[in-house]
Amino acid sequence: MTEQDFPSNWGRWGSDDELGAVNLITDEARARGAAEARTGRTVSIARVTTPFPLTGGPLGAATASTTAVQTAMLFTGFGAPAMAEVMIVTTHHAEVTHLDAMGHWAAGGKVYPGVDVADSSGPTGVRHGAAEVYGSGFLTRGVLLDLAPGGRLAPAHPVTGADLDAAAARAGTEVLPGDAIVVRGGWDRVNGGDEPEPGMTADAIRWMHAHGVAVYAGDIGDARPPLVAGVPGALHFLALGRLAIPLVDAADPEPLAAMCTRLGRWTFQFVIGAPRIAGTTGLPVNPLAVF
Amino acid sequence: MTEQDFPSNWGRWGSDDELGAVNLITDEARARGAAEARTGRTVSIARVTTPFPLTGGPLGAATASTTAVQTAMLFTGFGAPAMAEVMIVTTHHAEVTHLDAMGHWAAGGKVYPGVDVADSSGPTGVRHGAAEVYGSGFLTRGVLLDLAPGGRLAPAHPVTGADLDAAAARAGTEVLPGDAIVVRGGWDRVNGGDEPEPGMTADAIRWMHAHGVAVYAGDIGDARPPLVAGVPGALHFLALGRLAIPLVDAADPEPLAAMCTRLGRWTFQFVIGAPRIAGTTGLPVNPLAVF
Amino acid sequence: MTEQDFPSNWGRWGSDDELGAVNLITDEARARGAAEARTGRTVSIARVTTPFPLTGGPLGAATASTTAVQTAMLFTGFGAPAMAEVMIVTTHHAEVTHLDAMGHWAAGGKVYPGVDVADSSGPTGVRHGAAEVYGSGFLTRGVLLDLAPGGRLAPAHPVTGADLDAAAARAGTEVLPGDAIVVRGGWDRVNGGDEPEPGMTADAIRWMHAHGVAVYAGDIGDARPPLVAGVPGALHFLALGRLAIPLVDAADPEPLAAMCTRLGRWTFQFVIGAPRIAGTTGLPVNPLAVF
Amino acid sequence: MTEQDFPSNWGRWGSDDELGAVNLITDEARARGAAEARTGRTVSIARVTTPFPLTGGPLGAATASTTAVQTAMLFTGFGAPAMAEVMIVTTHHAEVTHLDAMGHWAAGGKVYPGVDVADSSGPTGVRHGAAEVYGSGFLTRGVLLDLAPGGRLAPAHPVTGADLDAAAARAGTEVLPGDAIVVRGGWDRVNGGDEPEPGMTADAIRWMHAHGVAVYAGDIGDARPPLVAGVPGALHFLALGRLAIPLVDAADPEPLAAMCTRLGRWTFQFVIGAPRIAGTTGLPVNPLAVF
Repeated sequence: MTEQDFPSNWGRWGSDDELGAVNLITDEARARGAAEARTGRTVSIARVTTPFPLTGGPLGAATASTTAVQTAMLFTGFGAPAMAEVMIVTTHHAEVTHLDAMGHWAAGGKVYPGVDVADSSGPTGVRHGAAEVYGSGFLTRGVLLDLAPGGRLAPAHPVTGADLDAAAARAGTEVLPGDAIVVRGGWDRVNGGDEPEPGMTADAIRWMHAHGVAVYAGDIGDARPPLVAGVPGALHFLALGRLAIPLVDAADPEPLAAMCTRLGRWTFQFVIGAPRIAGTTGLPVNPLAVF
Repeated sequence: MTEQDFPSNWGRWGSDDELGAVNLITDEARARGAAEARTGRTVSIARVTTPFPLTGGPLGAATASTTAVQTAMLFTGFGAPAMAEVMIVTTHHAEVTHLDAMGHWAAGGKVYPGVDVADSSGPTGVRHGAAEVYGSGFLTRGVLLDLAPGGRLAPAHPVTGADLDAAAARAGTEVLPGDAIVVRGGWDRVNGGDEPEPGMTADAIRWMHAHGVAVYAGDIGDARPPLVAGVPGALHFLALGRLAIPLVDAADPEPLAAMCTRLGRWTFQFVIGAPRIAGTTGLPVNPLAVF
Repeated sequence: MTEQDFPSNWGRWGSDDELGAVNLITDEARARGAAEARTGRTVSIARVTTPFPLTGGPLGAATASTTAVQTAMLFTGFGAPAMAEVMIVTTHHAEVTHLDAMGHWAAGGKVYPGVDVADSSGPTGVRHGAAEVYGSGFLTRGVLLDLAPGGRLAPAHPVTGADLDAAAARAGTEVLPGDAIVVRGGWDRVNGGDEPEPGMTADAIRWMHAHGVAVYAGDIGDARPPLVAGVPGALHFLALGRLAIPLVDAADPEPLAAMCTRLGRWTFQFVIGAPRIAGTTGLPVNPLAVF
Repeated sequence: MTEQDFPSNWGRWGSDDELGAVNLITDEARARGAAEARTGRTVSIARVTTPFPLTGGPLGAATASTTAVQTAMLFTGFGAPAMAEVMIVTTHHAEVTHLDAMGHWAAGGKVYPGVDVADSSGPTGVRHGAAEVYGSGFLTRGVLLDLAPGGRLAPAHPVTGADLDAAAARAGTEVLPGDAIVVRGGWDRVNGGDEPEPGMTADAIRWMHAHGVAVYAGDIGDARPPLVAGVPGALHFLALGRLAIPLVDAADPEPLAAMCTRLGRWTFQFVIGAPRIAGTTGLPVNPLAVF
């Protein structure tokens, strides 16, 4: 299989679609998601990002442990009752959970579903495939696919469709068209040290296509260094680039896995309301699992 | 009535609580919220913020129409498949829908529930009452209180408890302890010109206390210029400062009002998942109403 | 004449040179500059840029009059003796006087003197032709070429070598190899409204080559809209791109012109010490004329 | 001696002066500085600051070695000839050479020469004592006071007037009213590790007052941890706060010391042209020594 042979959703929802696989969230899929909310208890699937403060002088640090977000506490005036800050966000950073929209990916000079990248992106922002196309929020059923319950995947493990099948079987459910999947491999990609990371293979992406995955979230993404066999960067090149599945990159499914284990239940209402900032390729998000 | 006499929730949930009125979202309130989700259809209660691009040269503009968010499209390399950006967010800005957490307000040198502001806030960020205390998300029943169905409030209208009662009656419901209220006055505070704005009065905040409001969102806030009679800045000073009700400032309830009218239904699942950025006084959010 | 025929300094100072025409500042030229300093009185050739404050809430403004520089006043702590700020600079902006280094220009995929742009610039900054190559400062003789003494050039005026000759004659001097020229046309390009701007022609750039200009500063640059006849963007394409003359863009020569007129003297010590920030295509500068 | 007894320049140049000791640069002092420029050779007294890139994804780093300056390389468009960036500067940071203006210091609630800090600084910037008051540049004679020729001061060394006298004697000159002094102790305060730093004592500041120092630059500042004896933070509290001597903080005098040694000459033309950005407490600068 080459990248060219790979299944594609380009054109499936028209020539100027910006939603991609989120179109798979039909009324039926949406209602299936809503029905998962019973107690209303929420669990976050996002990492907690600790900003680096933009301070100097005796207040300053010489080294920053992260640069995904930086904040400056503002001087609001002497005796003012309010405290406030300004923040700088480098969205596509491994330290901050964020949504990759269609406009983030422009392989071969084209953005899904075939828009010339120069028509999609310009110096002043994104005109086609911005994250704000999901601004009204989306909600569907979520399924936790825990690839290594209670532990973690082996270094450099190439995640396949069979791995995903096994996880679904453990969850006692089947992934249905329009579902969001949350993949857990037990890897913290920021603090993981120098070990070679596990990553998604083209085979796993093909599995997502077969099951009609609408949204992907996970602590496993494209391995660094790239996996030796298959397509390097399969998640971005194939899932985002060809299947138009929006990605929740740098998610943290640990609390979710703990909750699922406690409740003995691996499905939930999955809901994302990204900040409504227009014209960007991605946005920091906090996807919630509702039980 | 003076500010000192005003009801207060300081101490109600302990001396080091950071959640404030969100504590009112009991299991019962939460389940009531979850039950509202039937079709799973989501409506955003946030404004769309169009960033100003940080460009210069022939690409630059001489005037910025907003400064709540600014973005710089990044150069990711020649031939790189990914487009990306960095963004700068001035959270407490009328142009961007945001959550005010307890650490945002420090009237009289104290942050709810009595923490010295110097123990709450420092140059490197917020240590008590940061928005990230709501990082796991919260979900409850939401009620739209439309103060001016199909139109807008008169300029400088002082919103009272009676106004809120009338709106609840029109909605055919009663606001219950733990509910989130979404107030619509039909005012766009950014593009509203120079007319004096309507605003919340101490009487309205007292009403919120009596009904056990857990979260406030609205297009009506504290009037500018301040209302002549009563406590200026009642929403921030009293609702946030004394009742510890987190505020969703600069919300846009218009699409929600349209949906409620269409469905003949003024209650919904109200859910917020704010980006998990630690140590801030507020965060941009996209509260969703789920039907 | 086409752009290809145009004189070029590529290769003149070796195949990996980064200084460009600043190499023309020989010991002789430098000493000529030093000799101009007599009283030590300094005049700035830079615009004053008023930053836009990154504030929100009641402190915020809805409209920014400039976005070249933005500042946020920092909260340094309760009772702290120091006030401080963070600033955001969009260097290549018409509102802020800045130096264009070789790395700023990559026409035809090559940066002076023939370096592939992918070897010069990457996502993390500039490796060849950064502004920091001038970090030790440079000093030479400066000559004010006032194209419209006491007034301003006509709209859309195409500045030619003859114009520069006439200005030099009025100054009673000749531009010598290694000199910096400061060109005044009497145009404020930020506040100039919608009139078509004057601009440099290829003929003027040819004149600069013939005279061995080492550095260019001026309130006249490349016209917007582009001049009808000749090469559009001659200053950037030819002076910077082919002759490797660093540009001080968006200069303000008005106070200098006033001083020259008062002293009856159009030459001076010209000195630039740009902030030593590595890896950038340009930097905000304040070139000084010393009398 | 207490801080209250310490000599003060408050009121010496009027009640609304903003220049402070720069007023000591009389025509005579300025001409003395100009006369030092002979060959025109320039040496920078600034550190080179390497920005941290605001990138994410595979381009990002997990740790920042400095946060004084950060840059984002901008996407200027497909096929665009220009490369550009935006930069974020935390001015008062030990990594970047910067000028401290009067508005930076507000001890006891007053800014030199007695202005209430609330009248000097507000959330939107500095109104009294901003760095831009030096925007026309200043030039005077500079003297290198090398406290440890060829080596470095002992850890925690308290620099006294006697030390400065000895350095001036080695330089074969006397510091005169209106001179700028450049102090070298041989310490790199960023990369210096955990050893206790040398620092200025009140006695040294008193010496500066006696000699009429107009500007201070150096690699020695206020020691961290503070010196045990005397006034902690003498340079900021007394030199800046009471004598109104602007400080060039975090300077790098090593190349200057090498040049002085080579030429056998410890005086030079000292010139600063800070970027003309209004309303700030300080600015990144590159002070030049001209020989």
